[in-house]
Amino acid sequence: MKINPELDLVLERFTDVKPEIVWKAWTRPEHLKRWFVPAPWSIAEVEVDLRPGGIFRTVMQSPDGQQFPNLGCFLEIVENKKLVWTDLLLPGFRPAQAVQSGADLPFTAIVLLEPHGKGTRYQAICMHQDAAGRKRHEEMGFHEGWGKCFDQLVALAPEIG
Amino acid sequence: MKINPELDLVLERFTDVKPEIVWKAWTRPEHLKRWFVPAPWSIAEVEVDLRPGGIFRTVMQSPDGQQFPNLGCFLEIVENKKLVWTDLLLPGFRPAQAVQSGADLPFTAIVLLEPHGKGTRYQAICMHQDAAGRKRHEEMGFHEGWGKCFDQLVALAPEIG
Repeated sequence: MKINPELDLVLERFTDVKPEIVWKAWTRPEHLKRWFVPAPWSIAEVEVDLRPGGIFRTVMQSPDGQQFPNLGCFLEIVENKKLVWTDLLLPGFRPAQAVQSGADLPFTAIVLLEPHGKGTRYQAICMHQDAAGRKRHEEMGFHEGWGKCFDQLVALAPEIG
Repeated sequence: MKINPELDLVLERFTDVKPEIVWKAWTRPEHLKRWFVPAPWSIAEVEVDLRPGGIFRTVMQSPDGQQFPNLGCFLEIVENKKLVWTDLLLPGFRPAQAVQSGADLPFTAIVLLEPHGKGTRYQAICMHQDAAGRKRHEEMGFHEGWGKCFDQLVALAPEIG
């Protein structure tokens, strides 16, 4: 995976949680619901069809009840190692007309898990169309948001095991 | 595969050429060079990395030497059965900034091969973002162009066997 610093955002973390647990947290709706947006926001709906072209849909909900849908499809699935999806394509790889993400932000995301000691080296990479998209995502709080989410995932890990 | 008649264009053909031969014609650069654009246009360059996220690049050349590049990536590969690629994503699934196809036409294409008698039922499906994109592609001569290309593929088949 070649990072392009002008187009990509990267969150890297090391955790004692095993890759298998991080994978479950990322791929099972019942877990995603509990960590995939920073509290006090919540996930109202999750739909996961874990195959290339399969749906990845979430609805994020603000504390006052406003809902923000995100719709895309999975591109690559390597169990316990790599998960790729995009919102430029809808389920079945159909081109999205307008990107249906809360922020209207076209991106492809890659989650990479590698064994590290007893735990995991975790990388979440967002690739954008242009430098402006990257910048907007960064200013929306990519690092803080994805970081908080990952903290929530780690806190949830004992219940997933 | 669910066709949406408002967004998709479909070319269906039946041929005596076996699916294995059609597959080779579609996936090997030395064959693609000889049929992938209607004569007297020609293919100046072809690059194929046949895996999800792998490059699919062609350069079409008009009789007077003008070149039209097309760049995208493969999404799904099922040998002898199904080939999917898009120009909304670049190699490595990176979002394309502007679609780099000769016609600036964002689409996902699906080629489906099924055994039929001693030959093949061939379907080439192009999915577009909106009805306008479908219409533009149709007016550019989708059916005639893809049809002529397929005739060229069939004519080439005895040399591929």
